[in-house]
Amino acid sequence: MDRVYELTLLLDFYGQLLTARQFEILDLHYNNDYSLGEIAQQLNISRQGVFDNIKRAKTTLDNLEEKLGLVKKFTGQKKKAEDILKNINRIDLDYLKAEDRKHLESIRQGIQEIIDG
Amino acid sequence: MDRVYELTLLLDFYGQLLTARQFEILDLHYNNDYSLGEIAQQLNISRQGVFDNIKRAKTTLDNLEEKLGLVKKFTGQKKKAEDILKNINRIDLDYLKAEDRKHLESIRQGIQEIIDG
Repeated sequence: MDRVYELTLLLDFYGQLLTARQFEILDLHYNNDYSLGEIAQQLNISRQGVFDNIKRAKTTLDNLEEKLGLVKKFTGQKKKAEDILKNINRIDLDYLKAEDRKHLESIRQGIQEIIDG
Repeated sequence: MDRVYELTLLLDFYGQLLTARQFEILDLHYNNDYSLGEIAQQLNISRQGVFDNIKRAKTTLDNLEEKLGLVKKFTGQKKKAEDILKNINRIDLDYLKAEDRKHLESIRQGIQEIIDG
């Protein structure tokens, strides 16, 4: 997994356990693509202060995932749902009864919700 | 959700953020059905000590779920997977081509894994 994408997931899952300041900085950096210099200016702190906050917060997030593994658990479920969707798309709709086509459509929607969730 | 079942889920998700002693006590109580008196005897501490540890640990677990909501998130996914399984079971297999029956069986297995995960 790409490290930046991983950090957005870690932030999404565990961000509420960071300090408010750490969360604010990581949210600006990873979700809103602010550079360290832009964050420093925006929050009126030093660039080094921004860097230190990011470093500490990343360590906290990595430690949480190492202990709890919930991002891994969740991305595993999502991957399974994506595989299921592929199998749904392999079914030949022409051979289905109208009501079974409806059931399959509900199944597809449910799977899509799991993927999006 | 039944409170004891909820606590086994909270312990499963967030237990590694408790102290080792708290985790041990809650694991004995909620996963292995030990009474407070039995735990006190087993760990050679007072019954009041057991009670206090449980109380503090429950507060920690509840606070974690309030902040992160990951048990709620996962039980929601599981519930969706259970609904999908019901829809799969409504499809009339007799009308499916042999290979589509195989696809549907793969879908069923995938969904079951999400439910069991």
